[in-house]
Amino acid sequence: MAETNRLVCLARRPEGRIAADDLVLTELPLAPLAEGEALVRNTWLSIDPSVRIRLAATTPKGYLPPLRPGDPLAGLALGEVVASRRPDFAVGELVSHTQGFRDYALLGADAAAIGGYGSPAVVRTGGLPAQWFLGPLGSAGLTAYAGLFGVLELRPADTVWISAAAGAVGSLAAQLAKLRGATVIGSAGGAAKTAFLRDELGITAVDYRAGSLTGSLTAAAPDGIDAYFDNVGGDHLAAALDVLNPGGRIALCGAVSAYDGAPAPAPADLFPIVAKQLRLQGFRAGSFLDLDEPMRAEIGDHLAAGRLVHRETVFEGLHRAPAALVAMLSGATVGKTLCHLP
Amino acid sequence: MAETNRLVCLARRPEGRIAADDLVLTELPLAPLAEGEALVRNTWLSIDPSVRIRLAATTPKGYLPPLRPGDPLAGLALGEVVASRRPDFAVGELVSHTQGFRDYALLGADAAAIGGYGSPAVVRTGGLPAQWFLGPLGSAGLTAYAGLFGVLELRPADTVWISAAAGAVGSLAAQLAKLRGATVIGSAGGAAKTAFLRDELGITAVDYRAGSLTGSLTAAAPDGIDAYFDNVGGDHLAAALDVLNPGGRIALCGAVSAYDGAPAPAPADLFPIVAKQLRLQGFRAGSFLDLDEPMRAEIGDHLAAGRLVHRETVFEGLHRAPAALVAMLSGATVGKTLCHLP
Repeated sequence: MAETNRLVCLARRPEGRIAADDLVLTELPLAPLAEGEALVRNTWLSIDPSVRIRLAATTPKGYLPPLRPGDPLAGLALGEVVASRRPDFAVGELVSHTQGFRDYALLGADAAAIGGYGSPAVVRTGGLPAQWFLGPLGSAGLTAYAGLFGVLELRPADTVWISAAAGAVGSLAAQLAKLRGATVIGSAGGAAKTAFLRDELGITAVDYRAGSLTGSLTAAAPDGIDAYFDNVGGDHLAAALDVLNPGGRIALCGAVSAYDGAPAPAPADLFPIVAKQLRLQGFRAGSFLDLDEPMRAEIGDHLAAGRLVHRETVFEGLHRAPAALVAMLSGATVGKTLCHLP
Repeated sequence: MAETNRLVCLARRPEGRIAADDLVLTELPLAPLAEGEALVRNTWLSIDPSVRIRLAATTPKGYLPPLRPGDPLAGLALGEVVASRRPDFAVGELVSHTQGFRDYALLGADAAAIGGYGSPAVVRTGGLPAQWFLGPLGSAGLTAYAGLFGVLELRPADTVWISAAAGAVGSLAAQLAKLRGATVIGSAGGAAKTAFLRDELGITAVDYRAGSLTGSLTAAAPDGIDAYFDNVGGDHLAAALDVLNPGGRIALCGAVSAYDGAPAPAPADLFPIVAKQLRLQGFRAGSFLDLDEPMRAEIGDHLAAGRLVHRETVFEGLHRAPAALVAMLSGATVGKTLCHLP
């Protein structure tokens, strides 16, 4: 059994956009396993935008506290139980948990959950690739599914706009909405991503870097937009208030524009919410655990039938986890961003 | 029968806060009644914040277009049918409609409704004061009722904050919420209004002019606030995002802070909506017409039993309608603001 653990820690708070050397790989001795603990060798780390939130000096009320320099990062991860003194985890089992960004996770009874989601649990892959349980069959899948069906209550007649549609959650949401019969517009930054949306996902694509979002959306949806799945915030949310049809709904999943660097300004005018009787709902997947089973059934069927395009951007080795986070936050990755530990 | 009509018209667009001489009383000949029309002598004019919206150079998408200088103002009103060539309105009947701010309304088949609410309809007072059908038994009542029960889905265990709580809608909402068992915090500007909230309505009062709203609300509601009935927008909405408990709900009824003069800045940070999974819903009473009957039953019972404090600020004579609008928008009136025509 390993005697040391390597952990990705916060070296210093990022100023503006995060840089890889704001993080540092630290080596610490592994304590002997106490009663009630299991040791898990991580194999897949989920590289999620929300990891950035706790690197700032303050976090929003209701969120986990900021990390201090020296603290290890946390994040969803998968690993194999290599030693166990708790009855619910047997050696050799695959476990999902929130102690990512390190070689080994030490799961005690009090292992922290992020946002109510991610309590340590055994994963049975049924022969599917393990990392799918961090992506389409895991938190990304549940986030997309809960946003579309739990929050937006998407109907086949709807036109829905999904931002960051080339990302892990957005690309799933776009395809699930299309498979349910909705008209889907996806936005992303740059020609490569919009080509992915158009050619691989088969949806109407808008490049938010090319001209006015409001103008592009109006052209893409001449009859207006009924629902908006927001992964970005800032100017994207402002454009949604502008273009949404009366009675429109917005699911606020995250605001990646606000996480890294100077936050994008919030919409200056919220009166369209009143004038058009819009509904905005912030949500986290962890509040929709009742949808986990129907989500796995529906997405699992689509994956088995080859109806879902699932793209991954994989970084190899724990030492690459900082680069993975930087790349994902800067918009340089497509689909689900992962770090694979050998 | 009268041969001329006096109408309150827009003289020039207000610069900043509205002044009484931005409006002008114009006299026009009354055209002879055509088939399908009814002539109504107005007796009560409802002086509502939303009247201000159409005096600006632009109105929000989804709203009625701006008035041009020279155009007559519109607004909810009550009057008596004095001549009729339409079968649904008989001479002598009391009618509610949206052609306020004038002595006579000419109701054709196409008489405009404001926001879907206010289609001309006969009012049977059952011996109650007619003007109550513009207030607690009319649009103010339905707005308060729909916001609390249709949008916020208020529960007795909730702590609810109501802004502009000394106003027509706010004072009703505050009392209805309290009568249903909720804990109610009302905010208003200045000592006289907060005394009215505390001493006459019996709710916890916060003076938004006295120090930080967030601080005052936190002190008034140590266990946090579950629901917010927003009549103000701007800094009030920002404070709500700050103090609301996770899962909190916000009903956006109007944004009086944005109507008159320079709009109050919108909240700079909307991320609490995601972090605390808040729900915001803009609404207008006209979308909750199915609640009109239960509203009249519940509020009617409370009024009959003397359980509701109903305050009115009444201006006498059409020439006083501009002053009434200016006073109401500047926060100088309490309860329902009305203009009574002799």
